[in-house]
Amino acid sequence: MPRCARCGSPEGAIYIDYMKKYLCRECFLKFYERKVKNTVLKHGMFKGAVKVGVAVSGGKDSMALLRVIRNTFPNMELTALHINLGIGEYSEECELKVKELCEELGVKLVVYKLADEGFTIPDLMNTHYGKRICGACGIVKRYLMNKLSLELGVDRLATGHNLDDTVELLLELYLTGRVEELVRVKPVLEGGRGMVAKVKPLIEMTEKENFWYTHLTNTPFAMLECPLVKGSRMIARKKIIAKIEEELPGFKHLLYKSHVKRILPRLEKTVEKPELKACELCQMPTTGKVCAYCKLVSKVLETVKAHGKAGG
Amino acid sequence: MPRCARCGSPEGAIYIDYMKKYLCRECFLKFYERKVKNTVLKHGMFKGAVKVGVAVSGGKDSMALLRVIRNTFPNMELTALHINLGIGEYSEECELKVKELCEELGVKLVVYKLADEGFTIPDLMNTHYGKRICGACGIVKRYLMNKLSLELGVDRLATGHNLDDTVELLLELYLTGRVEELVRVKPVLEGGRGMVAKVKPLIEMTEKENFWYTHLTNTPFAMLECPLVKGSRMIARKKIIAKIEEELPGFKHLLYKSHVKRILPRLEKTVEKPELKACELCQMPTTGKVCAYCKLVSKVLETVKAHGKAGG
Repeated sequence: MPRCARCGSPEGAIYIDYMKKYLCRECFLKFYERKVKNTVLKHGMFKGAVKVGVAVSGGKDSMALLRVIRNTFPNMELTALHINLGIGEYSEECELKVKELCEELGVKLVVYKLADEGFTIPDLMNTHYGKRICGACGIVKRYLMNKLSLELGVDRLATGHNLDDTVELLLELYLTGRVEELVRVKPVLEGGRGMVAKVKPLIEMTEKENFWYTHLTNTPFAMLECPLVKGSRMIARKKIIAKIEEELPGFKHLLYKSHVKRILPRLEKTVEKPELKACELCQMPTTGKVCAYCKLVSKVLETVKAHGKAGG
Repeated sequence: MPRCARCGSPEGAIYIDYMKKYLCRECFLKFYERKVKNTVLKHGMFKGAVKVGVAVSGGKDSMALLRVIRNTFPNMELTALHINLGIGEYSEECELKVKELCEELGVKLVVYKLADEGFTIPDLMNTHYGKRICGACGIVKRYLMNKLSLELGVDRLATGHNLDDTVELLLELYLTGRVEELVRVKPVLEGGRGMVAKVKPLIEMTEKENFWYTHLTNTPFAMLECPLVKGSRMIARKKIIAKIEEELPGFKHLLYKSHVKRILPRLEKTVEKPELKACELCQMPTTGKVCAYCKLVSKVLETVKAHGKAGG
């Protein structure tokens, strides 16, 4: 086993590929927590926050997020928010693991069952949303997490987006030139009327680092994969990014930093903020007449009526 | 042999990877020439031009460029400009092939010998420019091509930059966030006082397409590779791009189009044009006191004096 590059311990078990260094367990944990804390402080993610919500899916990234925030900001009032998406056994495992971790950390947990809305994610498979199920699931989660935050008086919502997610999105948006969406890829999204401010403390951490952190801290997380994600474009793109990173080590960090520090500030100057109106159905902010969530709900409820009960 | 996707001829010999189609010789030549002509017309590359200069190195791209411009704009007054860089046998072969093609096409040729400036490219290897020899050679070629164009009354200078060159540069600049340089990656660079306007008619054509065009039209080009280019970063980056293209077919066309159509116009709004002054030594336009070329010349002439004659 190689030596730890920081303390010289002979147990340098964790290889950080983009630094080309081995670290031992203790040094990795210090490194990881310090790096996340730096990201939070650098971007003022918790500045002025009274009640921070943490969106926890039960996957390794958001579970790592909950622990690292608890450890690095021990005095912050935290509430974990979890949505049970109704995806059978998978969702049950997710909820179970979230409960387990929240109990261990002593963090208040609020669980919201999507079925209470009259449908579940699998019901979307019977609509045209089924073709882009991950995108549709994103609409649902963003909407409900925001609504839940407002109801609970959460003034900052932290999500587990990691560097790999971010770079995958950046690559897609740069290749298709979707500037309006590019300017929303950033560590802090300011809130507004009807919109909680969102922050991404793990935006500089790779998937692998989050995995190591959960692993080395014995953090529980759902091992099942979402059964609906199979064959998704997202997975294909992640494979491409892994290949690029192999050819060009540091690619992910470079693209992210170049975007946030150099290109984003320029693009932001050229994009007008979209005017937000109240959705005609739910009064939540939207750029159109009816928000994306209400459109989705009206579509899926039709199908649920025709095909049977939610989650059926 | 597969059938041609355009005319159905059983001799579909040329595979265009990003279109996933086979074309026969005749259809490929029509396709290639029409595509280049479209690029030229779309960007108004020759609009108002009286005398077009074509920078010809002797490599496949610029040789393809000279023929395709001659064929698609038969009434345009053309002058081929060639710089003999003094890189031994390689430069001799380049000059020979350029002369051969210009004779065949009946295009006027002006050859400038770098040795007349008192040095050659290999002399740069003895200076700190040796570490980035391709970049230094670029400074020399850009400067002399521009000067030569002005002296000859050329009002538009066409260069053989292809899609692969362009995407290689874009990837580098996006990853490092060099916005001031990004805004100069475009099909037409306007001229000004002391600066000829530059156009890139092959900017949408891949290296492979240019190779096929020279091959199928029996266009001569230098087969020797520049002996100084070995191990250059440029080659490594090209390999990376080939890998990305393999994983994500259409990557090169996507990145280029997204840049030119969507991102470039935004970035241009945020970048002030650098103020150009006259170089204190040669009076040519520069952003500093002394231009990059004069700095390079003063350095290399020192070395030539110390080590011996130009090209030695």
